[in-house]
Amino acid sequence: MTEPTVDERQLTVEDFPILRSVGTRWSDNDVFGHLNNAVHYQVFDTVINGWLSEVTGFPPTDMPALGVVAESGCKYFHEVRFPQTLVVGLAVARLGRSSVTYRLGLFAHEPGESSAAGKAVAAVGRWTHVYVDKSTRRPIDIPEPIRNQLSAVAQRS
Amino acid sequence: MTEPTVDERQLTVEDFPILRSVGTRWSDNDVFGHLNNAVHYQVFDTVINGWLSEVTGFPPTDMPALGVVAESGCKYFHEVRFPQTLVVGLAVARLGRSSVTYRLGLFAHEPGESSAAGKAVAAVGRWTHVYVDKSTRRPIDIPEPIRNQLSAVAQRS
Amino acid sequence: MTEPTVDERQLTVEDFPILRSVGTRWSDNDVFGHLNNAVHYQVFDTVINGWLSEVTGFPPTDMPALGVVAESGCKYFHEVRFPQTLVVGLAVARLGRSSVTYRLGLFAHEPGESSAAGKAVAAVGRWTHVYVDKSTRRPIDIPEPIRNQLSAVAQRS
Amino acid sequence: MTEPTVDERQLTVEDFPILRSVGTRWSDNDVFGHLNNAVHYQVFDTVINGWLSEVTGFPPTDMPALGVVAESGCKYFHEVRFPQTLVVGLAVARLGRSSVTYRLGLFAHEPGESSAAGKAVAAVGRWTHVYVDKSTRRPIDIPEPIRNQLSAVAQRS
Repeated sequence: MTEPTVDERQLTVEDFPILRSVGTRWSDNDVFGHLNNAVHYQVFDTVINGWLSEVTGFPPTDMPALGVVAESGCKYFHEVRFPQTLVVGLAVARLGRSSVTYRLGLFAHEPGESSAAGKAVAAVGRWTHVYVDKSTRRPIDIPEPIRNQLSAVAQRS
Repeated sequence: MTEPTVDERQLTVEDFPILRSVGTRWSDNDVFGHLNNAVHYQVFDTVINGWLSEVTGFPPTDMPALGVVAESGCKYFHEVRFPQTLVVGLAVARLGRSSVTYRLGLFAHEPGESSAAGKAVAAVGRWTHVYVDKSTRRPIDIPEPIRNQLSAVAQRS
Repeated sequence: MTEPTVDERQLTVEDFPILRSVGTRWSDNDVFGHLNNAVHYQVFDTVINGWLSEVTGFPPTDMPALGVVAESGCKYFHEVRFPQTLVVGLAVARLGRSSVTYRLGLFAHEPGESSAAGKAVAAVGRWTHVYVDKSTRRPIDIPEPIRNQLSAVAQRS
Repeated sequence: MTEPTVDERQLTVEDFPILRSVGTRWSDNDVFGHLNNAVHYQVFDTVINGWLSEVTGFPPTDMPALGVVAESGCKYFHEVRFPQTLVVGLAVARLGRSSVTYRLGLFAHEPGESSAAGKAVAAVGRWTHVYVDKSTRRPIDIPEPIRNQLSAVAQRS
C-alpha cells in the first residue's frame, strides 16, 4: 500500500473518516495562553484508544494485545486554547502486519459553536502503534477484531 | 451566611445548581487503572473557570481580577477511569467579600450513557478562590459581574 | 495519638524529618506564570511514593498492599514556578491501623541555589492513604515493612 | 549546513554536547507501568527551555522573542518509568535564520545510580522552534544572545 502525499495544511474535517470531540482543560494552557504542545499527544492518544475501545468492545486497558507507541509526531499550524473544544479527525495512513500508522487532524471550535466544519486544521499528527504480546512484549500480528476495524477505516482514508 | 453540614457521601447530581461535563483522557489513568488523584483538581479548575467565563462573558484568561487558589481539597469515595465521562456539580458553599468557596461533586458515567443521574458521588471537592488585583496581587472585592453570578448560585446551593 | 496544632505558615524545612527534591517542568506553569495548583498534588504523590519505595525496597507500583488516596488537601501561601526546584518536607501527622495521614511542606529555590534553607513555606499539604487489599480493595492493616518506616518518621514529626 | 545521517538507536550520552537531568513523577506512569508517551515531550520542553534560560540569562517565560514549536517528534525504543531519573542529551541538528531544530536523546537510570553512562538510548526526539515576534507573531531572526549559544552547540553536535 503506497501512502499518497497529502498537503497537510489544507486538510479539513471532511478528509477524515472518523471524528471525535475532546474538551480542553484550564491547565492545558501554558504561559503563552495556548495549549502546551505535549497536550496534543494526550489528545491523540485519547482519540485513538477511545475509538478502538468503542468499535472493538474491548476495554481500553484490556485489549487482546498491547498497542505500544513506536513513533509519534506533530506539526503545529495554529494555536488552540482552553476553553475551545477540539475535534480530532482520525485516518489510517498505513496498515502493516503488526503496526498501524494513523494520521490525525486537530481542529478547534469555540464553546458556543456546534462543530468544526470550515475550520482550518490547527495541527496534524502522525502516530504508529506496534502490537506486542502482553507477556513477551515482542511484535505480533494485529489481532483480528482490531485489524477489521483498521481495514475499514483505511479504505475510507 | 452559615454553611450547613452536608453528608457528602449522599450527594447526588440534584444537589448541585450547576452541572458540567468533562471528558477523561487515556493519560489520566495511572498504574492502578483509575484516575490519578491530581486529575480531579484539573477537572475542578476547568469546571469553575469554564463556567465563570461563560456566565460573565470574560475570557477565562482575562478576568477583571485574578482568582487565585488559596486552598483546595478532595475526598475520594469511588474510583473513576478513562473512558468514562465526568459530570461535575458546582455549588457555592461560602461567599465572602474577596473570596468564594465552592463545593464540587464528581460523578461518572460510561461512554454509552447520557447522564450521571442516579450515580453515587465519586468524589467531593472544596475550592477557595481569593480575588487579587492583577498588578499588586493583594486581595480586592470580588468584581461585580462575578459576584452577581456567585450570589445567584449561592441562593440555589 | 493526638495531633498537635501547627502554625502552618511558620513551617520551615527543619520541621520535616524527610526532605526530597522534585524538579519543575515548563508545562507546570499555567497562564499566570506559576505552577498550576494541581501540580502540587503530582509532586506530593511523587515524594510519598518515591520515599516509601526507597525505604521499603518495594517497587512503587508493586507494594504488598495498595495505598489508596482517601483525602488530599493543600493550602497555597506563595507562588512557585518553573524553573525553580521544589524541596518537599514529609512528616507523619497521624498513624492509624489501616491509614496514614502525611503533612507536607513545599519549598522552592532558584536553579543556582543548593537548598531551600531559610525559605518561607510556599504550600502545605495533607494526604491520607488507606491501605487496601489488592484484590478485594477492602481496608487492611498497614503492612509491617511500611508501618515500621511510618512509625519511625511519626516519632520525629 | 547539511545534516548528517545518524543511526539513532546507537546514540549514547557521549553524542550530545549538553546533558541535563529531569526527574520522573508517579503520575507519569500510565496503565502499562511506563511513562505515557506525551511525557517525553514535557521533558524535552523542560530541557530546551531550562537550558536556554540558564545560558542566556533570560527568564524562560520572558525571552526577547517567542520560540514557538512548529514541529515535534519522538521515536520510542525502550520503556522508561517512575522512579527512574531521566538524562536528556541535547544537540542542534539544524540552525536556520529564524528556526532551530534540536535532536534529543532520552536515557534513564535507576534512583541508586549516579549517571546514564553506558545506557541504551530509550527515545530520540526532534524539535523545531521558530522564533516569532511577541506581538505580531510573525517569524523573525533568532535573537543574537540565543543564536550565539545555538551556534556554539551546533559546532559540537
